[in-house]
Amino acid sequence: MIDSQRGRACPLFRSGILALMLVLTAAVCEAGIPADSLARQLLRKGLGSYHSHDLLTELVRVAGSRLSGSPGAVKAVNLTAAMMRRYGFENVHAESVMVPHWVRGKKEEALLLPRGGGAARPLAVCALGGSDGTPRSGITAEVLEVRSFEELRAAGPRAAGKIVFFNRPMDPTLLNTFSAYGGAVDQRAGGAIEAARCGAVAAIVRSVTLARDNVPHTGSMGYRDSIPRIPGVAIGIRDADLLSATLIHDPHARVKIRLSCRTLPDAPSANVIGELRGSERPDEVIVIGGHLDAWDTGTGAHDDGAGCVQAIEALRLLKELGIKPKRTIRAVMFMNEENGSRGGRAYVAATQRSGERHIAAIEADRGGFMPRGFTVQGDSDVVERVKRWETVLGLVGAGVVTAGHAGVDVSPTVEAGAVGFGLIVDHQRYFDVHHSANDSIEAVHPRELELGAIAGALLVCLISEEGL
Amino acid sequence: MIDSQRGRACPLFRSGILALMLVLTAAVCEAGIPADSLARQLLRKGLGSYHSHDLLTELVRVAGSRLSGSPGAVKAVNLTAAMMRRYGFENVHAESVMVPHWVRGKKEEALLLPRGGGAARPLAVCALGGSDGTPRSGITAEVLEVRSFEELRAAGPRAAGKIVFFNRPMDPTLLNTFSAYGGAVDQRAGGAIEAARCGAVAAIVRSVTLARDNVPHTGSMGYRDSIPRIPGVAIGIRDADLLSATLIHDPHARVKIRLSCRTLPDAPSANVIGELRGSERPDEVIVIGGHLDAWDTGTGAHDDGAGCVQAIEALRLLKELGIKPKRTIRAVMFMNEENGSRGGRAYVAATQRSGERHIAAIEADRGGFMPRGFTVQGDSDVVERVKRWETVLGLVGAGVVTAGHAGVDVSPTVEAGAVGFGLIVDHQRYFDVHHSANDSIEAVHPRELELGAIAGALLVCLISEEGL
Repeated sequence: MIDSQRGRACPLFRSGILALMLVLTAAVCEAGIPADSLARQLLRKGLGSYHSHDLLTELVRVAGSRLSGSPGAVKAVNLTAAMMRRYGFENVHAESVMVPHWVRGKKEEALLLPRGGGAARPLAVCALGGSDGTPRSGITAEVLEVRSFEELRAAGPRAAGKIVFFNRPMDPTLLNTFSAYGGAVDQRAGGAIEAARCGAVAAIVRSVTLARDNVPHTGSMGYRDSIPRIPGVAIGIRDADLLSATLIHDPHARVKIRLSCRTLPDAPSANVIGELRGSERPDEVIVIGGHLDAWDTGTGAHDDGAGCVQAIEALRLLKELGIKPKRTIRAVMFMNEENGSRGGRAYVAATQRSGERHIAAIEADRGGFMPRGFTVQGDSDVVERVKRWETVLGLVGAGVVTAGHAGVDVSPTVEAGAVGFGLIVDHQRYFDVHHSANDSIEAVHPRELELGAIAGALLVCLISEEGL
Repeated sequence: MIDSQRGRACPLFRSGILALMLVLTAAVCEAGIPADSLARQLLRKGLGSYHSHDLLTELVRVAGSRLSGSPGAVKAVNLTAAMMRRYGFENVHAESVMVPHWVRGKKEEALLLPRGGGAARPLAVCALGGSDGTPRSGITAEVLEVRSFEELRAAGPRAAGKIVFFNRPMDPTLLNTFSAYGGAVDQRAGGAIEAARCGAVAAIVRSVTLARDNVPHTGSMGYRDSIPRIPGVAIGIRDADLLSATLIHDPHARVKIRLSCRTLPDAPSANVIGELRGSERPDEVIVIGGHLDAWDTGTGAHDDGAGCVQAIEALRLLKELGIKPKRTIRAVMFMNEENGSRGGRAYVAATQRSGERHIAAIEADRGGFMPRGFTVQGDSDVVERVKRWETVLGLVGAGVVTAGHAGVDVSPTVEAGAVGFGLIVDHQRYFDVHHSANDSIEAVHPRELELGAIAGALLVCLISEEGL
């Protein structure tokens, strides 16, 4: 076991490497490692190689974009299973799950058509995930710009036959960029529904981003059974500003949208699992994971290739250090977080069948940036108990422990009784890349990524050895 | 005054904008702003425009590289004075200081010459700052690789007539990259002295960086009067590894170095100063600053254009919010931090003549990355008193207050009695860019940079209104 209160020592891990440590560290009894020594060893091992960056490079090179149902997703399932076998994880397998299968298709364009018949201007757009396509001839209509659903409803019949342009930006003045995202993403998720309710023929949504470039950012959108299905696209923010400015002096300007995206029948896919089997309580499971699917506009290096390779790297680091955990530590690559969350639900269903008890579920899905700590999703007592690890987690840069949501993929596991944890990172740069072509390996810093893996390794080990 | 303990209210700033706030905020008395309200207003104003990024873009575009004594440094002095006048700061002026004047010259190359006479291979090098040049025909010699001064001394006479190659990397396994820097920079600063002491003819130093590219990183090196002056260059780390590997199978391989760098007579330059004059205690001064000079290999966007524009932006933000501080808040662009620290010393000399009392001196010189808090350089009582602001500083992301060194430029001011503060940032990426061509505006994130300015504005305002 690990002793997170320095100076107190307790019976711990048993492994070959520890003989040396017994000589080197003061606060050790039997064959254990004090938690602060473990933290330093994880830093030494992890930052000595930046292995997680190599794994991520391999993932985006081999699998590339990997939306649920795509050939890239199949490659990602096979590759991450192969990675876990390569490192000698136990019980490596894929667990089947049927997933939605949306494809972008080849045609994806929008043209701004000035009223007077001037030259058409291409706009930087991409279909929102789940959108229906347009007729082959496209949809051409005048544009109604609004900043909110309330403004749309107030406009009422003026929306009929038009393309509704939702142009409310993320609020850049909030320190917490996730709050800013939360304040704008309703337009993307529900814009097509609300526009169709008012008789509109399509929806254009200002990209939900804090970047100042013109790259469109996709993401899932919904339909509602009783309301007509109209196409939805995201537009780069410079072109959003251009469209808005154009509409002031040319309110009858039209936009023509052509999309060939469509939804195919559900496809077979899988969660991928590998573990370090617990030596004393193998049926008590600690999950650490991210989601393997990623939007097809980029290669999902941050979202959420980072979380996947960090989970694999966390287990690899513990194994490299010769640690044999008391409880089972399991890496899970969840499928289909982006447009269905089927993987997270299928995982719980499978584990409930097997009679395992999940004591904790840790998710990393906020980008591979500098870690700061962990949210804890559980009752206030457990949050307080986790706070006893703040000092030791601080040794690897992740000393903030605060109550909060863990993550989409582990939510069903948390609902089933596990304590949830979410890796907190510095998120100032996240919404520059999120769901866009900007989300590439070049945007991931090797040290920041590895530190997330190290923080994860340390936390799972603390939970495994000390309990919650 | 600002009330940093929420709920308690005190008499504060007087300004027009505050009338509105009186209606909006609960914890206000007379014409003051509670500190948490000020924090939110600074976020709103600062993150609403990322003004510091525009200033930094202007600085690197107009002045470019700006080593002490260079034409770029002259432009930087004029430009930052103009910026401060543009925003209506008071008492804007340049204070003369004579600075060292080292020039790189046009010729800067190193060739790896295999023993058997194979093709010469260019190596990525740059002269270290302060190095003498080589004869026009260059210096050609065999290479002795060492990892430390101890190893060099043990090699003793084997160094005579050779080029000594210092190849100890920064330790990547330390979480604190400044500690890793401190563990390697002796080779750059003193390598030429130690090599010459052993009879060597030149020194090559592995770039002091954590990047994995081949870009050489410069920085200052020294000479000692009694020891021959030999040239020193930094080599990119890929070429350092190549050279090291070459020496294993070809120990008599030679390197030819040609440099035309030289030191000219000291040149006139200046610190640049502007302030918001205190309304109640104008003779009590709070300095916030960075250094205006930057190595000529890049454009010094992080080091330390960031600290300069953050100081200007901090005062601009306070002025925009209509804040009239009790004490004088002064932005200082220090000249010559990189190779002489003359500006910091000249500043103190000038202020001591004028009879001002400096109560605090804040420096930002760790790159324009995400702020985390402030080091405090003072006695333990003052550190504890500053900790009372952790909560409010945390509202802008900078809630860590810890005892520590403030910075090179403000050191003389701190020695003269001021409490020193250093902006702490996330430094994982800093040594990728530090002192190299990588240090460009593209490496600076607008939000992270602006948050440093906001943190500075909040701290100077807290000190001004509440005292230390």
